Order: sequence, then structure tokens, then C-alpha cells
Amino acid sequence: MMTIKLALIQMQTAPDREENLAKVEDLITVAAGQGADIVVLPEMFSIPYAAAWMRSSMETMEGEIVQLLRRFASDNYINLLGGTFPELADSERCYNTSLFINREGEIIASHRKLHLFDAALDGEDFTESTLVVPGDSPTVFDTEYGKMGIAICYDMRFPELFLRMAQLGARLIFVPAAFSRVTGPQHWEVLVRSRAMDNQLFVAACSPASAPDLPFDPYGCSMVVDPWGEIIGESGRHEDLLQVEIDLDTIEEVRKKLPLMEHRRPEVYI
Amino acid sequence: MMTIKLALIQMQTAPDREENLAKVEDLITVAAGQGADIVVLPEMFSIPYAAAWMRSSMETMEGEIVQLLRRFASDNYINLLGGTFPELADSERCYNTSLFINREGEIIASHRKLHLFDAALDGEDFTESTLVVPGDSPTVFDTEYGKMGIAICYDMRFPELFLRMAQLGARLIFVPAAFSRVTGPQHWEVLVRSRAMDNQLFVAACSPASAPDLPFDPYGCSMVVDPWGEIIGESGRHEDLLQVEIDLDTIEEVRKKLPLMEHRRPEVYI
Repeated sequence: MMTIKLALIQMQTAPDREENLAKVEDLITVAAGQGADIVVLPEMFSIPYAAAWMRSSMETMEGEIVQLLRRFASDNYINLLGGTFPELADSERCYNTSLFINREGEIIASHRKLHLFDAALDGEDFTESTLVVPGDSPTVFDTEYGKMGIAICYDMRFPELFLRMAQLGARLIFVPAAFSRVTGPQHWEVLVRSRAMDNQLFVAACSPASAPDLPFDPYGCSMVVDPWGEIIGESGRHEDLLQVEIDLDTIEEVRKKLPLMEHRRPEVYI
Repeated sequence: MMTIKLALIQMQTAPDREENLAKVEDLITVAAGQGADIVVLPEMFSIPYAAAWMRSSMETMEGEIVQLLRRFASDNYINLLGGTFPELADSERCYNTSLFINREGEIIASHRKLHLFDAALDGEDFTESTLVVPGDSPTVFDTEYGKMGIAICYDMRFPELFLRMAQLGARLIFVPAAFSRVTGPQHWEVLVRSRAMDNQLFVAACSPASAPDLPFDPYGCSMVVDPWGEIIGESGRHEDLLQVEIDLDTIEEVRKKLPLMEHRRPEVYI
């Protein structure tokens, strides 16, 4: 048995950055007190997901957010998937960056969102690429529990990325994300489940809670799915601390029953 | 508007081959009479899906099944996705083959199942590869309605195949399939929906009806999903003639809103 206690913090992000950061610290402390091994934050946990807030909150890897995340991890002796924050890229733009920090507060991995959400949905238009610079490689890294990966929100739309992370050895993939009221109900669950099922690994997808009074109202519904595609824990749309225990050995059981990876025929897909 | 009337024949296959073939002809005639443009048959419509029946029913492209399918199409002036039949490969083995036949009774495409189901599910073990020889390429072909593709049952587990068919121009992908009582409830809907949603095209998946008295009891639940991932028609587990009208122009609307294909980054997935 290789069990891990996950805690996904589905928090509502307020316009006030300090208020959000204080809330993050409180919730991490609660989760750690209840035995969490890995705490997961949502996409853009320090500010509401909108261009104006992101623009005014860009900072470097030496900035306050990264220092705080490292301290939260080491103070509570937990692994921390630090949601995402706007990492300064140049005077005008940022990366959408997610860090994995270990129990000692060391940065183990940094993933920059690879796919930018430029879409014209009914009543909800986004052109993320005017503000965000994309990363340039998948992110798979070693942890005390083996290899894990990160995809951010719209990255989840691309099955090739998840297959690549699986081939690189990822056994648990974190997805900090903020789907909308349009795409959430229609696509969120199918995407999370299919990425886990197709690659026979765990996916932990963490969203901010619904915030109906803000310009962007995240879908919520954070979710942990096992390698068989089953939802083993999920939140509603409101604030929630979602705690789920996973057993990584399930991966081998599922892959032995249904050896998808061995059955692939890459020579046929070209 | 580029609308097409689909009719999916979710029939129960009996041990008696002649009975099944007569039923197929009756149901095609009914569907054609109600205006079907394309009639879709399930995987192994002429015999129950089991090794003994398949072994005793193997025949060539010059055999009775292909002649009948061509006649059913031309007699009724419909396009016919001929489910699958065991196409003789050598003295011991067959291909699992699906044909697309046009209104004139001409064979437009032949797809041989690419991925063989060798799995040890709880109480339902299969080693398809002892009997079936796999095909060696994806199948995308021109029809009076544009390009379409075919995947057979377990082929649906491999997102790379669907992406390849989409890149080759397929706008509607047929999936004759027979999922089980184990994998059906847990995986069928997520697979059909994610393949349609990820590639922003139509998927029409046709299963035999449940047959609880036979060794293999198919899941049923035939389904048509649109490019947004929405189920626009579905059957239960029992016999059904599922009629669904689709509008191919939906594909361009969805791709304009959310240009997934343009946002892919193949250089990153290597």
C-alpha cells in the first residue's frame, strides 16, 4: 500500500490579496492538522482570475508568493502544489505558473501553463494570450511518493500532454484549474475522468469556489479521480476542503487488468 | 445546414445467424422508410460476440455477409456502416472488419480493428488476439457528406487514433462496439463523449442490445455525441432503433468558439 492523503483547497478568492493569502495559510494549517501529505491549491488562489488583478499581481520567483508558499509547506511539514500565480515574464506579461514544494519548503518543480485559453464562448470571451506567455515543456518530477505531473486548466483539453506525462512516469497529475459556468457543467467531469482513465493514473483537479459576485465565476467541483476513471472525491461549487486518501498501488492493478500502454500502436497514429 | 439522418440499429444478436441477418434487413428497411441517410450496425451483428461463433462464421470479402450488406444498402438507397463481421485472415484467424457502403451498394471503406482486447477484467477475461489479426492503419474516407472515420470498440480507448482521424479530416466517426457489463457502466459514456469533445466532431457509437442469456452480455447504450460533447441521442440496454439528426455545420461553430486544433503544440508533447 502506498497511500497518500490529499487535501484540495477549493477556496473562494476575494478581490483582497492579503485576505486570500491569510485564508490559504489557515486552510493549509487545518489540512496539515488532519494529516494531509499533499495540499493542493487552485489556479490563481491569491487573486480573482481576471486580467486586471493578474496584471497588478505579477511577481518573480523571488517575490512574496513563492516565499509564502515555501514557508506554508515547511511550517506545516506538508508537500504543497501551489495552485498558480502570475509569474512576471516581462513588463507587460506573465506566465501562469504552478509550483510543487516539498515538506522542507524546497521547490521541486515549476510548470508554466502550456496552452492559452483564447476562446469566444457565449457571453464569456477570453484572450489569455494577450497577458500570458506560455511555457515550453511538460512537467514531470520526483517526489517522496514517486513521479507526478502538472497541467493547468486549459492544458487539460489536450490528451497528448497527459499521455506524454504518463510516458514520463507521472502517477498523479495535479490540475489547478478554473473552468467557467459554461464549460464546467458540460466538460469538466468528462475531461478529468477521461485523462485519468485513458492514462490509468490519478488526477487531482482543484478549482476556486464559485464567486457569483465577481466578473469570473469559477465552476468549482474540485475532483480526485482514480486510474479506473472513478471519482473518489468531489466538491460542490462552494468553499470546501476536499480530503481524499489515494492508494498508488491501484495503478498497477488497473494496468495489469487492462494494459492500455502496452496495447498502444504509435506506428499506426502517424 | 448539412443535416444527416442517422439510424443506429441496437439489435440483440441471437445464436442463429440467419435470424440475425433477417432482422438486420427488416430494421434497415424500417430505418430507410423513416428517411435514414446512414444506417449504423453494431459490432458483430450477425453472431453473438464470442470466439466459437466468430470462428465458425469467418468469410472473405466475397462471402455472403458482404454481398448482403451491399444489397441492403442499394435496395434501400441508404449509406450503411456495416457493423463488423469476422473477415477470414487465415485458416485459424480473422480480422474484425467494418465496411462503409454507399447508396449504390459500393464499398467505400474497410476498417480492420486496430487494437485487440486482451484484458483480465473481474470475471470477464478476453484474449481477442488468439483469434483476431489486427489491421494496420486508420480509416478515413470520403462520403457524400464529407470525410468520416471508423474505430471498432477497444480502438476507442486510444485518443491518438481519434486525433489522427480528425487530422485526416473525419467529421463523423462511427464506433461499432460491444462493451461489457463491467466496462460499459464505468467507461462507455466518458469515452464516447471525450473522443467527440476533444476532437470537436460527431461520434456515433452502436452496440448490440443486452443479451443476458448469452455468454457475453453487451452493454448496449448506443449513443450519438455532438462536437461540443453533448449526447444528442442514446438508447437504453434493450433493442432500439435510435434515430438522430445531426448538423455537420455544428463542427465549424464549435471549432470557431474553441479552436483546439490550432492550439495544439505537438512540439511540446515529444
